[in-house]
Amino acid sequence: MKLYSSKLAPSPLKVVIFLKEKGILDQVEIVNLDLGKLEHKTPEYKAIAPNSRVPALQLDDGTIILETTAICRYLEALYPEPNLFGESPIEIASIEMWYSRVTYELMVPLMHGFRHTHPHMSQMENQNQEYGLAQRELAVKSLDTYNNIIASREYIAGERFTYADIQMVTSLQFLVRLNRLDIQDYENLNDYINQVSSRPSFLV
Amino acid sequence: MKLYSSKLAPSPLKVVIFLKEKGILDQVEIVNLDLGKLEHKTPEYKAIAPNSRVPALQLDDGTIILETTAICRYLEALYPEPNLFGESPIEIASIEMWYSRVTYELMVPLMHGFRHTHPHMSQMENQNQEYGLAQRELAVKSLDTYNNIIASREYIAGERFTYADIQMVTSLQFLVRLNRLDIQDYENLNDYINQVSSRPSFLV
Repeated sequence: MKLYSSKLAPSPLKVVIFLKEKGILDQVEIVNLDLGKLEHKTPEYKAIAPNSRVPALQLDDGTIILETTAICRYLEALYPEPNLFGESPIEIASIEMWYSRVTYELMVPLMHGFRHTHPHMSQMENQNQEYGLAQRELAVKSLDTYNNIIASREYIAGERFTYADIQMVTSLQFLVRLNRLDIQDYENLNDYINQVSSRPSFLV
Repeated sequence: MKLYSSKLAPSPLKVVIFLKEKGILDQVEIVNLDLGKLEHKTPEYKAIAPNSRVPALQLDDGTIILETTAICRYLEALYPEPNLFGESPIEIASIEMWYSRVTYELMVPLMHGFRHTHPHMSQMENQNQEYGLAQRELAVKSLDTYNNIIASREYIAGERFTYADIQMVTSLQFLVRLNRLDIQDYENLNDYINQVSSRPSFLV
């Protein structure tokens, strides 16, 4: 298998963490694209990933899997242990629920707050300052909410580390500072991130 | 189990279609909220669903599952047949990939095009016309793309009906006309929607 990745983008990082948690990083050839040099916009890469996004997983028979969670679910089906998407029905539901809530309540507003207001994104995004600022405001409210939610638990979706934690920690590590916010102002979130990201799979 | 639902909202409709496909609609008590009367904003409902959204599934022990896909994955784990999220690793990946692509490439821009430009949404959304029009433009491009993609296949994620079709058909049925677009201008999409929505699970 070949994973088309990039060293600075958060989505392929989630797959790399997933591979490390499974202990199967050596099963996959990593091909790092330089997004700064627009290596994801070349005709060669568009033939692999028509949406010009990383990550993309290419199987040995040439089949392409796009989308971070689809790649991770494929790997979970091939390598079920350690389980990261849930075992019992209620655990499966909880991981999906928190993955989804974290995505829509935290990641999306933080992402739009960044993409629509940050000067570095002006070439890459059809920016709308007003929309970006409204999204950033939503994100700040969500950070307060999640700072409270995480106060009473070690992991976001239950008693153990799961895919929902990968989504939450990578989103926060990447996007909070890009919104010129300081994660240290959110003590419980900061503790949670420090604890999760001390796992060997998060170390570069 | 109790499903908090609403007759006019697309997300709970996905769960109802899912229940019908599984043949287990009679296992669940449906509680329809009138969103027009803001029944989802009452303190009673917020105690159940803090995000004031439908659907929410309440289990007999009181546990609440929020988020459409989380509810459906819970039901899939309890009632595995007929399978709607995939069986082989590659099928699991394909359904997740197309669910995700349909969501981000079609549903989200159509949703924002509607919410940010439609006069009926002015009370419920912090509207930004310019952003809404840019999203609507993206949605129109995506409709062309998906009109081509669906030309060569009966179902979006493979050889059979899956959860990805529920996401795609309900999104298009609900959101295309709310963007003052006509699905009949997209012949292949129109055929696909007519074929899928003739399933008994889609009939009201």
